[in-house]
Amino acid sequence: MKEVRFFYVPDAVSQTELPQEEAVHALRVLRLNVGDEIFLMDGKGVFFRAEVSMTSSKHCSYVIKESMPQCPAWRGHIHLAIAPTKMTERMEWMTEKATEVGFDALTFLHCQYSERKTLRTDRMERIAISAMKQSRKAWLPAVHPLMSFKDFIAQPHCGRKFICHCYDEIDRKDFFTEISREPVDDADCDVCVLIGPEGDFSLDEVKQAIGCGFVSVSLGQSRLRTETAGLSAVMMAQLARRIQSH
Amino acid sequence: MKEVRFFYVPDAVSQTELPQEEAVHALRVLRLNVGDEIFLMDGKGVFFRAEVSMTSSKHCSYVIKESMPQCPAWRGHIHLAIAPTKMTERMEWMTEKATEVGFDALTFLHCQYSERKTLRTDRMERIAISAMKQSRKAWLPAVHPLMSFKDFIAQPHCGRKFICHCYDEIDRKDFFTEISREPVDDADCDVCVLIGPEGDFSLDEVKQAIGCGFVSVSLGQSRLRTETAGLSAVMMAQLARRIQSH
Repeated sequence: MKEVRFFYVPDAVSQTELPQEEAVHALRVLRLNVGDEIFLMDGKGVFFRAEVSMTSSKHCSYVIKESMPQCPAWRGHIHLAIAPTKMTERMEWMTEKATEVGFDALTFLHCQYSERKTLRTDRMERIAISAMKQSRKAWLPAVHPLMSFKDFIAQPHCGRKFICHCYDEIDRKDFFTEISREPVDDADCDVCVLIGPEGDFSLDEVKQAIGCGFVSVSLGQSRLRTETAGLSAVMMAQLARRIQSH
Repeated sequence: MKEVRFFYVPDAVSQTELPQEEAVHALRVLRLNVGDEIFLMDGKGVFFRAEVSMTSSKHCSYVIKESMPQCPAWRGHIHLAIAPTKMTERMEWMTEKATEVGFDALTFLHCQYSERKTLRTDRMERIAISAMKQSRKAWLPAVHPLMSFKDFIAQPHCGRKFICHCYDEIDRKDFFTEISREPVDDADCDVCVLIGPEGDFSLDEVKQAIGCGFVSVSLGQSRLRTETAGLSAVMMAQLARRIQSH
């Protein structure tokens, strides 16, 4: 397979050269020259066919030849809000995999039983960018700074809102069945799903979320680690909202 | 939540003490004593409630108090056959996550474009055991030794057989739609799915598999890494075959 070269340029149209990190990769690793064809992605739904117009040791200028707006691959906005795991690398792979599978926003939550209370979300964003390029996603998922559970659930969220937890004493619907019900309108396509830390949400947090309109759900019979639960929720939302190409 | 202690004892009924590694964990980490309650899992569908009956520096004997056969959480046999990735750690996490989500068998394939031609499957089996314990799965997925693609597709496989690939020139059905069609009988519940290496299967391999009765499929619009494709296939099969508890 002929490998096309994709570069992430957030403001591709208003810029005329690759961002420095991308330029270094283009020049030193791929050894691109004037006249070579490259592809740009703006992370906002558009790919661009471009041509290298000038190079120097650290700069790589381009001229856009064609703008190629992409079709969304799923309906609505898929937002995962999750308490980071103690081991950051588990959040890193989840971010990579969820981006490959396809979702729109990631918020890290500070919960009552959180083992990790800080997180370098800039690093998570870099992982999302890398996974977006690798999997050729037209939209970059937004990675939001860590925020408190309370503040997050109090925010307005469009569409369907869910909280996944393991308390048998609180009635739980099945997440996949719930999101698979046909949306009534465009706003109803949006999904926001909360995943708790290793020790789960507190019972109080679950009740607060229900009070804020979140539906109490289960991801199924499996006992999943936090990061597996996060990825499962994204995969289920993706399957329920995907637009099939043929 | 009260944490119950699970130990993997493949032949729990015919044995009277924990395997050495489990015994060391029980005695040195958990500091269990005579009379303490433990749970055993045989990886073949049965949990046992037992009691520590005798301990020494490296041995931990038990007496079984109750046998608790588990109900299957999904119908049929889910078999993933995948070409190992160049980086083993990507196969390791896939094995961990697929076990958490739930599947029955894992075979590693040696394909034409495989970047990795050997793999320590004993290490993968240890990861599966650890994930089975952590996620309280009643059945241990079978981890088979690496085998050639040709030999694998020539073997008899019950149920529905699929090959996932990225060749646009070969008609592909949608994997999730295909496995979601109601099985006609018990044998039809079984799923066997092939995932190729980083450079995909060769066109020739895809044709050979189709010749052996494998259905040509796609996992959707996303461009997935090998290990993400493997996990996605397992998650889709799991969603299509799961038995809901309520």
